[in-house]
Amino acid sequence: MGPGVSQLVECVPNFSEGRRREVINAIADAIGREGARVVDVQADAAHNRMVVTFVAEPELAIASAFAGASVAVERIDLNQHRGEHPRMGAVDVVPFVPFADLPMTVCIELAHRFGARLWKELRVPVYYYGEAARNAERRELERVRRGGFEELRDHGSEPDREPDEGAGLHPTAGATAVGARIPLIAYNVNLKTEDVQVAKDIARTIRASSGGMPNVKALGFALADRGLVQVSMNLTDYRVSNIWKVFTAIKAEAERRGIDVQESEIVGTIPLDAAVRTIKDAVMEPAFKMDQILEKRVWASE
Amino acid sequence: MGPGVSQLVECVPNFSEGRRREVINAIADAIGREGARVVDVQADAAHNRMVVTFVAEPELAIASAFAGASVAVERIDLNQHRGEHPRMGAVDVVPFVPFADLPMTVCIELAHRFGARLWKELRVPVYYYGEAARNAERRELERVRRGGFEELRDHGSEPDREPDEGAGLHPTAGATAVGARIPLIAYNVNLKTEDVQVAKDIARTIRASSGGMPNVKALGFALADRGLVQVSMNLTDYRVSNIWKVFTAIKAEAERRGIDVQESEIVGTIPLDAAVRTIKDAVMEPAFKMDQILEKRVWASE
Repeated sequence: MGPGVSQLVECVPNFSEGRRREVINAIADAIGREGARVVDVQADAAHNRMVVTFVAEPELAIASAFAGASVAVERIDLNQHRGEHPRMGAVDVVPFVPFADLPMTVCIELAHRFGARLWKELRVPVYYYGEAARNAERRELERVRRGGFEELRDHGSEPDREPDEGAGLHPTAGATAVGARIPLIAYNVNLKTEDVQVAKDIARTIRASSGGMPNVKALGFALADRGLVQVSMNLTDYRVSNIWKVFTAIKAEAERRGIDVQESEIVGTIPLDAAVRTIKDAVMEPAFKMDQILEKRVWASE
Repeated sequence: MGPGVSQLVECVPNFSEGRRREVINAIADAIGREGARVVDVQADAAHNRMVVTFVAEPELAIASAFAGASVAVERIDLNQHRGEHPRMGAVDVVPFVPFADLPMTVCIELAHRFGARLWKELRVPVYYYGEAARNAERRELERVRRGGFEELRDHGSEPDREPDEGAGLHPTAGATAVGARIPLIAYNVNLKTEDVQVAKDIARTIRASSGGMPNVKALGFALADRGLVQVSMNLTDYRVSNIWKVFTAIKAEAERRGIDVQESEIVGTIPLDAAVRTIKDAVMEPAFKMDQILEKRVWASE
């Protein structure tokens, strides 16, 4: 970024409300009112969950996330909440993500300051995860959140589950995971077969947890209405396993089984860096740089 | 682009000076002093030519290009100029290129207004080319510029070579081609062989002029110091023949001859749209859009 341009952070808070439109709007409005640029709001009724993506200067990011959290803590009672998605808090997860050239250290510091404020002012205990984790056991969000609100409520906090900020559990808002991470990429590859076992087998071959590609989470699904199956993924570090690498690995696995790829789907936004890395590998252009995107040169220096 | 954001135009004027540093700097400084954002300045001594890339709001683009042209007309005498690159003017070529969502019609109008001013104030006759051409014969720059300054000077202007603005030739600054076009992409693919004939054959197979891929210009060269050969291209419409399509076509041609691709090279800048189209084709993701690049959402709305 050019001189005089402040650096930006992306923040992607997840709230446990995906059905009551007035609550969804109140949370998103509170974030926007602080001055953050709300890039996306996704509410899902089945998951009963909403995900806000916003971008702001670092100080403003804390204020904006806190404004949204205040509404969520006031309006959401997890004792009444039902939904498919695992969750432990009204403000369930708040990751701070570097935008463009922002260093990860800034995001870690923001996470810790936001977490301290969440406990101090709203009495919501906080677990730090990802790059902001205080110890290795808490790096993985799934592990921090295991059992969800009900387990924390009904079984009390065992010694190894003490929050990093505060103590116990907020009676209605539960606890919050606050973290720092690089951008996640949601990516699917759809295959021309109705045999869901193919997608499940390939997902198992591909995913990191069964020895496949590092930083890839993968599941196989049927897309019954289209007569296709899907390998559905989260790429948790596109610098290691990018879209091109994952696509070609799945394509090769499918072809080995005599099955063609129908298409792939990049879900939501990706950072420009991920697009550039995909092109580098796809056309064997190791020297290709983000700075060669004309818009980057112009926009990033504004 | 968001509301309140003015649209931008890219302008890539080529001047016939690549050796005298003080003239190169004076031209680039004059452009920047008007307020345009100078993105790149390339000066080549063998070609004795410089290429400035700048971005500005439309009105400012005319003023900036004119400021550079004024210096060039004053400082460059084509009667003294030697260099490998074809040229017919001190201000040789001035293309206006849409940036981001700017319509081509705006660039065509800018070209015509700039051309009129060049003749009126500097007495440099102008030929319009590309999208700004007044007739089909002048769409191709090569055709407009054939024979260069010397032919126009020594053989006078035949009826079919009358300029679109003004008449005759400026005694020292020659004539200028002013145009509107989409961004060009300079793209090379390097092959693991020392046999330059392979590159020449593949270039002939690929290029539009011999019935290959539309909007592709290609030549074959030896990269003697690296023990490689190169298919060197200009992609004149990446919407038709994008980087991925050209790369895979050349790779297939090379493999048919038992030769591997060493790497490819994207030279200079490409528009984000070209990157997105490359990814769409490379990973079979037909629905992928520029708006899915997070930076585009944030920067373009600033």
